[in-house]
Amino acid sequence: MTEGGKEIERLIDLMARLPGLGPRSARRAVLQMIKKKELLLTPLARAMVEVAETARLCQTCGNIGSAAECDICRDPNRDGAVICVVEDVADLWALERAGVFKGRYHVLGGILSALDGVGPEDLRIPQLAERVRDSQVSEVILALAATIDGQTTAHYIADQLDGVTVTSLAQGVPIGGELDYLDDGTITAALTARKSF
Amino acid sequence: MTEGGKEIERLIDLMARLPGLGPRSARRAVLQMIKKKELLLTPLARAMVEVAETARLCQTCGNIGSAAECDICRDPNRDGAVICVVEDVADLWALERAGVFKGRYHVLGGILSALDGVGPEDLRIPQLAERVRDSQVSEVILALAATIDGQTTAHYIADQLDGVTVTSLAQGVPIGGELDYLDDGTITAALTARKSF
Repeated sequence: MTEGGKEIERLIDLMARLPGLGPRSARRAVLQMIKKKELLLTPLARAMVEVAETARLCQTCGNIGSAAECDICRDPNRDGAVICVVEDVADLWALERAGVFKGRYHVLGGILSALDGVGPEDLRIPQLAERVRDSQVSEVILALAATIDGQTTAHYIADQLDGVTVTSLAQGVPIGGELDYLDDGTITAALTARKSF
Repeated sequence: MTEGGKEIERLIDLMARLPGLGPRSARRAVLQMIKKKELLLTPLARAMVEVAETARLCQTCGNIGSAAECDICRDPNRDGAVICVVEDVADLWALERAGVFKGRYHVLGGILSALDGVGPEDLRIPQLAERVRDSQVSEVILALAATIDGQTTAHYIADQLDGVTVTSLAQGVPIGGELDYLDDGTITAALTARKSF
């Protein structure tokens, strides 16, 4: 028996491939869409078609946008002298939500990983080096994950860049963090990087 | 700042309205879609357009299908003499997955609820009464939730139907259920409905 016909079953199958959705929640989501056809299904279909037609990678920074260069790279109010290097577009979005960074970005599209066979050529590291060489960049901020792979990547990138200040995000106690819930590594980092009060 | 442009932001907004997805997981899902444009985004958009064009409620039972009558109502191998009454299409799908019921269905599209102002006219109860009157129905199985509202609805429907056997699902220990994790109500029901071994 097919669940409401093969079109619906195919939609459920596709939805179940999205991160965060399994077969069960995909079924619920599709049922909800069909019930709210005018409010959900039709607009969603339209929005997806539009995104499929317009979304593309920015040729400069690797961000997702709807033109050859993304909004951030085209924005004249953003400081082109500071480039923040992130692993993924999701990280760029997270930084933009914080709303504190006014420079430009460079999205690597992944992180170096010997285990997964990801080398420098698979990421956008050569493009970053070229970008730093060609334009008036004074600082590169490495906003990579505080994991082994993240820090390996950060060190590799720092080695590739000449004549530019390379910084990284501060490590320490997160805002709202309680000491007795923090891991040893974070406490060590926070203590080592202590500052005058 | 928009996240990758207004089309993408609109898609994230719409996705976040689906059950089981919040703004955060909608963002992840959309990012994944854009990265796998050929594998996910384009097929999803196409599947949604197809479902939006074809999906409709079966005029007999209220199931979702792609014709005026759903696959189950048209299937000559299904027993038209037994109608299983369910709250929602999701319940019908759950019963179909079990694969044990070979009769037809009637989807109420909700449940009586004084609190939410849902009366018999808002559900498909009159249609059920009519269907029982007009065709050769011998048994109506009330497969409604074992909640106050579900049982209220079951009693109301049983009152509306004449000249037909009305049954309901058995209540008891679920398969794989351990007694010390069961609630008092279930244990009471299982004990009351005990059967010879």
